[in-house]
Amino acid sequence: MDLYEHINGFFNPKSVAVIGASSKPGKIGYAVLDNLRRYHGKVFPINPRKDEILGLKSYPSIEDVPETIDMAVIVIRSEDVPQTIEKCAKKGVKNIVIISGGFKEIGGKYRNIEEEIAEMARKYNIRIVGPNCIGVFDPRTGLDTFFQPRHRMLRPGPGNVAFLSQSGTYGIILLEWAAMDHLGVSKFVSYGNKVDVDEADLLLYLLEEPNTEVIGIYMEGLKDGKKFYDAAKKVSKVKPVVILRGGWSEQARMAVMSHTGFLGGSGRIYWGAFKQAGLYIAKNLEDLYDMVKALAKQTFARGNRVAMVSNGAGPMVQAIDAMVLEGLELAKLSEETIKRFKEELSPFTVVNNPVDVTGSATTEDYKIVIDSLIDDPNVDMIFVFFVHSDSPLTPDIVDVLGELSKKAKELNKPILIGAAGGPYTLKLNEKAEKLGIPTYPIPERLVSAAKALYLEGIKKGT
Amino acid sequence: MDLYEHINGFFNPKSVAVIGASSKPGKIGYAVLDNLRRYHGKVFPINPRKDEILGLKSYPSIEDVPETIDMAVIVIRSEDVPQTIEKCAKKGVKNIVIISGGFKEIGGKYRNIEEEIAEMARKYNIRIVGPNCIGVFDPRTGLDTFFQPRHRMLRPGPGNVAFLSQSGTYGIILLEWAAMDHLGVSKFVSYGNKVDVDEADLLLYLLEEPNTEVIGIYMEGLKDGKKFYDAAKKVSKVKPVVILRGGWSEQARMAVMSHTGFLGGSGRIYWGAFKQAGLYIAKNLEDLYDMVKALAKQTFARGNRVAMVSNGAGPMVQAIDAMVLEGLELAKLSEETIKRFKEELSPFTVVNNPVDVTGSATTEDYKIVIDSLIDDPNVDMIFVFFVHSDSPLTPDIVDVLGELSKKAKELNKPILIGAAGGPYTLKLNEKAEKLGIPTYPIPERLVSAAKALYLEGIKKGT
Repeated sequence: MDLYEHINGFFNPKSVAVIGASSKPGKIGYAVLDNLRRYHGKVFPINPRKDEILGLKSYPSIEDVPETIDMAVIVIRSEDVPQTIEKCAKKGVKNIVIISGGFKEIGGKYRNIEEEIAEMARKYNIRIVGPNCIGVFDPRTGLDTFFQPRHRMLRPGPGNVAFLSQSGTYGIILLEWAAMDHLGVSKFVSYGNKVDVDEADLLLYLLEEPNTEVIGIYMEGLKDGKKFYDAAKKVSKVKPVVILRGGWSEQARMAVMSHTGFLGGSGRIYWGAFKQAGLYIAKNLEDLYDMVKALAKQTFARGNRVAMVSNGAGPMVQAIDAMVLEGLELAKLSEETIKRFKEELSPFTVVNNPVDVTGSATTEDYKIVIDSLIDDPNVDMIFVFFVHSDSPLTPDIVDVLGELSKKAKELNKPILIGAAGGPYTLKLNEKAEKLGIPTYPIPERLVSAAKALYLEGIKKGT
Repeated sequence: MDLYEHINGFFNPKSVAVIGASSKPGKIGYAVLDNLRRYHGKVFPINPRKDEILGLKSYPSIEDVPETIDMAVIVIRSEDVPQTIEKCAKKGVKNIVIISGGFKEIGGKYRNIEEEIAEMARKYNIRIVGPNCIGVFDPRTGLDTFFQPRHRMLRPGPGNVAFLSQSGTYGIILLEWAAMDHLGVSKFVSYGNKVDVDEADLLLYLLEEPNTEVIGIYMEGLKDGKKFYDAAKKVSKVKPVVILRGGWSEQARMAVMSHTGFLGGSGRIYWGAFKQAGLYIAKNLEDLYDMVKALAKQTFARGNRVAMVSNGAGPMVQAIDAMVLEGLELAKLSEETIKRFKEELSPFTVVNNPVDVTGSATTEDYKIVIDSLIDDPNVDMIFVFFVHSDSPLTPDIVDVLGELSKKAKELNKPILIGAAGGPYTLKLNEKAEKLGIPTYPIPERLVSAAKALYLEGIKKGT
C-alpha cells in the first residue's frame, strides 16, 4: 500500500471499531461513538462491560468482532494503548486514530509508551494519527472521530480546503468558521503528538487528493524539519499552503513541551524555511483562516494594483495603510473609468481610487463602479466595502455583486468584501460567502488575505 | 454656557428640528427623522414641500416652528447649509448636527462653504458636530441622529463606554459590536469633518460626564495637535482612553484628504504624542474594541503575571507567544496552588502554568483551578480558554465563572475568556459578556486587551 492509499484509509474505511466506547453521555467514548455511528461504514463499539451501546452491538475486545476491521479509534487510557494496538494488528487493522491523551506531554513513563507505539506502527505497517488529538473528519464520506457533539460543534460541508491542525482546539474553530462561511472542506486531520503520521505525510497525501485545492496548517513543532521542508516545497508549487506556527517564543516552547510533547525550534529558523518552501505565513489563527478562505473562494490576482469602493470611507483609509505594509498598491484608474464615473455618478462621488460613493450610494451606484473597475486594465484586485445599514443601499447589492464577481473571476480579478456589524450585516455577509465572495470585518484582515492572492498570482507566473 | 453644558446639549435637547426631513423611505432625511421621532423630546420635520411626515407636522422653514428649538439636524445639500445655519441662529438653536457630506472632502468651492460654517459657529455661539458624519447617539435619552434604520443597525444599551469616531462607518461597527456583547455605551459622537466640535472638546466633555468611564476614539487627522495633546493628557489620567488612528501612511493621507478633508500627519509623530499623553494605542478596529471592552467590563490588574487554564492547550501556546511581545509574564504558581491541583485534579492535568486540564475537563475541574488561581498571590490576571464543544464540559461553567469573577474583581484580578467557534460557543460567549467577562476569539486579541488592564494598573500606581 502506498502512502496515498494508506492515508486515504483514514477517510473511508469499510468498518471502524471504537475501542473504549462508552454508554455514558458526557464521556469522550460516548461522543466519539455517537458521531461515528452516522458514518455509512460499519461501526463496532468495543467495551468489555457492555453488550450494546447506542443501539450498536458491543464487543469485549476487537478480536471478538466477527468481521474485518479497517480502522480503529482508540479512546482508552494511555497505559492500555500498546496492548490494544497489538490486538488491532492481529485483527488486520490498517489505520488507527488515538484520541486519548496522557503520553509524551505528561513526560516520564508516558513518554516511553509513545515510543513503543511508534515502533509498533512501523512493525505492523499500521498508520497512526495522534495520540492526544480529535482525529479525522471528511464531509464527503461523513467520517468523524470527534468527541464534540454535533449540537455543540458545526461541521462544514464538502469543498476544496484541507485543514491540518496539531491542536484540536484550533481545528474545531477553523471547521466551525468554515461551516458558518459556507467554506467547504475536503479533509481534516488533527494529529496531536504525531507518533506516526505527520505534516509531511499529510501534505504529500493532499498533493494527490483530488478535492483539495488549498491547504491550511496549524503546527507547534517539527520532529523532522528536512522531511517537512521537502514535502512543503513540493506541494506548495501545486496547491497553496498557508501555515501558522504556535510556540515560537522561548517561553511558549516550554508550554508546547507539555502540550504535544515537542520542543519547538526558534521562530526565526522556521519562518525562513517556510518562506523558502513557498508557504504563506499567517500572523494568527484568524489570518490563517482569512487567507485560506480567499484562496479557496477567489481567483489568484495578476498583479498588486488594487481599486476600492465604499459608501463609508473610513475602512478604505485603513486598507491603504495596511497595503503599504503588505506590498499592495493603489491602482491608477484608466481615463475611461474616470470618464464613466463622472458621467454616471453623483457629483459628490470621489471619482478617484479609492472611490467614495458616500452614504447616499445606491445599489446602482455600486454596480456602475464595480463594473467599470472590472473592465479597467489598470486594476488587478477589487476591494468592496459596505455600510449595509446605510438607508439608501438595498440588500440586493449582494446578488448584484455575485453576478459581477463571475465576470471578474474569469479575468482573474479577485473581489473581496469588507463589512462588519450586527445581524443585518452578518446575514448579508453570509449571503456573499455563499456566492463565493469572501468577507472580512476589518480592512487589515482583508488586505492580508488579498496579499495571498497576489503572491499566488506571482507563483502562477502571471 | 460652559463647554460641558454646551456639548451636553447634543444629548438631551428639549426640541429637535430635522432640516431636510424626507417622506421617502430610503432617503437619508427619512431615516434620520424615523430614528429621531422615537426621542422623548419634541421633533419637528422641516421640509418646504410637505405638511406632515411620518405623522409629525412639518414646517417649510425652521423659522415657522411656533416653539423654541434647541437643536437642529441638517440633511440638506452642502450649498444650502450656510443660509440654514443663519436661520437656526435667528431661531436661537444652540446645537447643530450636520449629517450632509459634500464639503471640504470634495475640495474647491465646497471647502469655502466649510470655512463659512466654522465662522458662523463662532459668531453665533452655536456648537456644530460634523459635517459629513452620522452624528450623535445617547442610549439613556434615546437621542439618535443616525440614517441607519433600527432593523439594519443594532443600538447598544446604556453603559460606561464613550465612543468618538471621525468615521461614521467605524462608529456603526463599534456600536453594533457593543450591542451584541452587552457592552453599554454612555455617549457616541461621529464628528466627520469637525468644522467646530473636535476630539479635544469631546474629551474634555467626557472627563466631566458622570456615566463615562472608558473612552475609545477612531481618528484620521488633527487640526490642532497641541489642543488634542493637552486634552488627552488631562483626561487619560482619570479615564482610560484607547485610540486608533487611520491614515498614517503617505498613500492613505491623500485618501483622507478626500474623506474628511484633513491632511493627516505622519504616523510616527502621532504615536509618540499619543503615548506621551497616556493613551492606549490600538492596532486596528478590533483591537480598539477589544481593549475598550476589557477596560469597561473588568478591573485593572495589579501586575503583569498571568495564569491561564484551558481544556485545549493550543491557544495557550499562542497566548504565551503574544505575551512575550506585549510584556506580560507567566506567573509562577505558589506551592499551595500546585498542591491543591495535585490533590484535586486528574493525574493527567498539567499542574503547572499554563494549566492544561485536557479535553476530559469538567466544570468542576475548571472551578478548582480558577478558584485556586484567584487565591494565588503570585497571579495578577487570569486567562480562561474554553473548548466549549468538548463533551465532558457542561455549559454551566459560564455561570460558575460569573460567580468566581466577582471575587476576582474585588482583588483586582481581571479574568478574560478565550473561546471561538459556532453558535453554541458564541451563545456561551454572549452569556459571559452579559456577566461582565470579556471574550476574545484568538489569544493575540485577548493578550492585547489584557495589556491595557496591566497598563491601567500602573497608571493607578499599584
